[in-house]
Amino acid sequence: MVSNTFPPPPEYQLGPIPLTNPVLEGVRWKLWHKAIGGPLSDLPEKSWAIIQKEKHKQMLHLLEFPYNGEPPKSLTTAKVITPNSLHYVRNHGGIPDIEKEKWDLQIDGLVNNPKTLTLKDLQNEAIFPRIKKTVTIQCSGTRRMEQIALYAGEGDEMINAPWAEGAIGTAEYVGISLKKVIKHCGGMADGGKHLELSGADSYFKHNELMNYLVSVPWSKVKANEVLLVWEMNGEPLPKIHGYPVRVLVLGYIGARSVKWLYRITGLSKPSRAPVQSKEYLYFNQQIGKHNQLPTDGIQIQEMPVSSALMSPWNKQVVIHNGAIHCKGWAYSGGGRWPERVELSADGGFSWYAVPPEKMSEKKKFAWRTWEHAVPVEVEGWIEILVRCWDNSLNTQPLEVRTSWNWGLHITQSCHRIRIYSINKKRKATSDRLELFEKHGEPLVPITRPIDFAIVI
Amino acid sequence: MVSNTFPPPPEYQLGPIPLTNPVLEGVRWKLWHKAIGGPLSDLPEKSWAIIQKEKHKQMLHLLEFPYNGEPPKSLTTAKVITPNSLHYVRNHGGIPDIEKEKWDLQIDGLVNNPKTLTLKDLQNEAIFPRIKKTVTIQCSGTRRMEQIALYAGEGDEMINAPWAEGAIGTAEYVGISLKKVIKHCGGMADGGKHLELSGADSYFKHNELMNYLVSVPWSKVKANEVLLVWEMNGEPLPKIHGYPVRVLVLGYIGARSVKWLYRITGLSKPSRAPVQSKEYLYFNQQIGKHNQLPTDGIQIQEMPVSSALMSPWNKQVVIHNGAIHCKGWAYSGGGRWPERVELSADGGFSWYAVPPEKMSEKKKFAWRTWEHAVPVEVEGWIEILVRCWDNSLNTQPLEVRTSWNWGLHITQSCHRIRIYSINKKRKATSDRLELFEKHGEPLVPITRPIDFAIVI
Repeated sequence: MVSNTFPPPPEYQLGPIPLTNPVLEGVRWKLWHKAIGGPLSDLPEKSWAIIQKEKHKQMLHLLEFPYNGEPPKSLTTAKVITPNSLHYVRNHGGIPDIEKEKWDLQIDGLVNNPKTLTLKDLQNEAIFPRIKKTVTIQCSGTRRMEQIALYAGEGDEMINAPWAEGAIGTAEYVGISLKKVIKHCGGMADGGKHLELSGADSYFKHNELMNYLVSVPWSKVKANEVLLVWEMNGEPLPKIHGYPVRVLVLGYIGARSVKWLYRITGLSKPSRAPVQSKEYLYFNQQIGKHNQLPTDGIQIQEMPVSSALMSPWNKQVVIHNGAIHCKGWAYSGGGRWPERVELSADGGFSWYAVPPEKMSEKKKFAWRTWEHAVPVEVEGWIEILVRCWDNSLNTQPLEVRTSWNWGLHITQSCHRIRIYSINKKRKATSDRLELFEKHGEPLVPITRPIDFAIVI
Repeated sequence: MVSNTFPPPPEYQLGPIPLTNPVLEGVRWKLWHKAIGGPLSDLPEKSWAIIQKEKHKQMLHLLEFPYNGEPPKSLTTAKVITPNSLHYVRNHGGIPDIEKEKWDLQIDGLVNNPKTLTLKDLQNEAIFPRIKKTVTIQCSGTRRMEQIALYAGEGDEMINAPWAEGAIGTAEYVGISLKKVIKHCGGMADGGKHLELSGADSYFKHNELMNYLVSVPWSKVKANEVLLVWEMNGEPLPKIHGYPVRVLVLGYIGARSVKWLYRITGLSKPSRAPVQSKEYLYFNQQIGKHNQLPTDGIQIQEMPVSSALMSPWNKQVVIHNGAIHCKGWAYSGGGRWPERVELSADGGFSWYAVPPEKMSEKKKFAWRTWEHAVPVEVEGWIEILVRCWDNSLNTQPLEVRTSWNWGLHITQSCHRIRIYSINKKRKATSDRLELFEKHGEPLVPITRPIDFAIVI
């Protein structure tokens, strides 16, 4: 690694942002794998082959390698349960090739009786009661595009993928509680307060290669909020989602839900591995980037309340009858749930609540999808906003600036889209639409000059 | 009651609001007690005598009867632990007169073995392990003044007390976990999912007299987050704070922490008593008040993240050396805690974080007090804002309008004060201050015409 030189990653934050999320190739990460050689050398190609097999052909590929992808807006909230092929993926390395029969899980460190368990052991229902649970996973980078569009963020080894609103997904998982596994190992040893979770995926930082490591507090595990799962929506975990066994840390950012799990270690303090201690930090907005130490950031664990509009789309021209039909999702981390979702069509001044019957079922640790027609009388450019109130009555700030931070994490401000409103309920508008129809001309795109003379 | 007529409560929301919180007498509540007669007839006078004995003479009395009072700004965050005499009080009736020796607690409804326990039973450490805990209680009406100043709220039997920033307090309590008490009663019976808590204080609604009743979910009790306590800051509970035994529901609004507890009842659903089902509801802002049913409101339990400036004060003229020293509190409900407190002196555009060492200790279920000097270069009228980020990265919206709701509950928007800044670091200002001094004139109040001619 150190004897090689690698090109700098392409700049994408300071230039104009394409309408669709920019697709980044991940050249440096690929070259690092080649420089290490051995089984890693062709991992980028092998991983790409798995992606093409396992994921939907309409997925938006934000970063080719390590793979980062999200479903298109039209499909993100089409169903309350996200199909496996459409669930977003945020990988930090290649996809490990693991044989289920050869896989085992080492549990060591500050636990009383360290053990190594096979998948068969974990699936022994006499010891570990089986759990089936609907769980939403959200990347802390969801809606990062809005922060990038405002101001650029930090440069890091790992490109901050320019996520839109699809870096969130909900699936039904089957597995067991990690608490039971630790109890099976005699419980935590004296001083054990955190559990380090190791994934088999490769991770680079400052020219060093390691595995993907994070940690969760024992108190979180003790509350039965950390699961080990092997089934996703009735199928074995897809390779790209952590086959054969991954962690699910309920209500935390996706980064803690380690994929391709192979080791769990009891620690007295949070893991010092870079993903836990140097990434996923919420930095102060107004201290210069180069003045900040990792310890100045807040380690992001629980996600705050958030929501997004999945329809209509930004810059869309909407011809309507006095109300614009909207769809989207709402979510809150830490086991809180959306209580109320509201839409504003006047820039955040007056708000219309989505009726409870137009929201999907209330579940701890899961999102709610919703749809509602928001009344719009005016025409021309308007902004539609969505906000959510969760059961702790937390809500979302109005402006992206409130959310902006160096790592471009957690865009929890109100999602805001620009719409050109054409209200057919207005007589002049419906007459004009008829006129256009008579001439065989569409009214949209609005930016095109009209080909015929308007006679009044 | 029905044969009497009572005067309407005085209007205070639509008129100009005094600089200090308006003091309301509570005439109707007093008359209701007299109309009922018997032991209730002189309760208003007896309660007032207790208040004068137990509370600090600088308390702001917002509502004389039932007593609602908060400490003045200068004393609210003077200490991290609020002295008993300065802890805010939000009563819904008079102060019951209970003899400790005659007191007992009836536990019935959906529990397996209903029991009646004395204080001695509860204090038996062989059965119930003793707990000592620092706990912040916050009224959902904290900072209601800001909502009233914007738009008036609903009229209700119970006057919505016009709280400022002091309806929050922190004390060290001694008691036991309610979970252990329920386990001692054989646990919850089949279908038991909520616990109704009855206080001995009198409560009126629609001409009916009852006791103060609310409920908490069993899951909250099970997590050891509901305590029964008899000691506050090393003393027996003051009469005004629930002597001999009160409930503490950690991280919930104060209204759930029933005082003068005498009964706990297992239920299958939340209590239908009016305090739980018809009060403390978070209504939609933009559906007409008379179109809303109680079931349209969100039952307020956990409090969202919030904070307040206790110094300087609104409209204060501050002469400084380029930085204005600020003090205050920050709190988040549900067991979350303030991670970062930020100050803005430019209306919410740029923010300065309070250094961690200038914040009091981080504790689950307790506030953090803080102080910090925010740089201010400019002079004239400015606005200082405070906001808090809790460990779930939730934060506060910028404007009061976001928070406004019919019941005027939960003012979680950024607290914002207006300050007239005089910066002595500016040469012209320091010269002018000298000139005023030479003439023996103060520069403040700024609204007073100057008595001498200024020669340049």
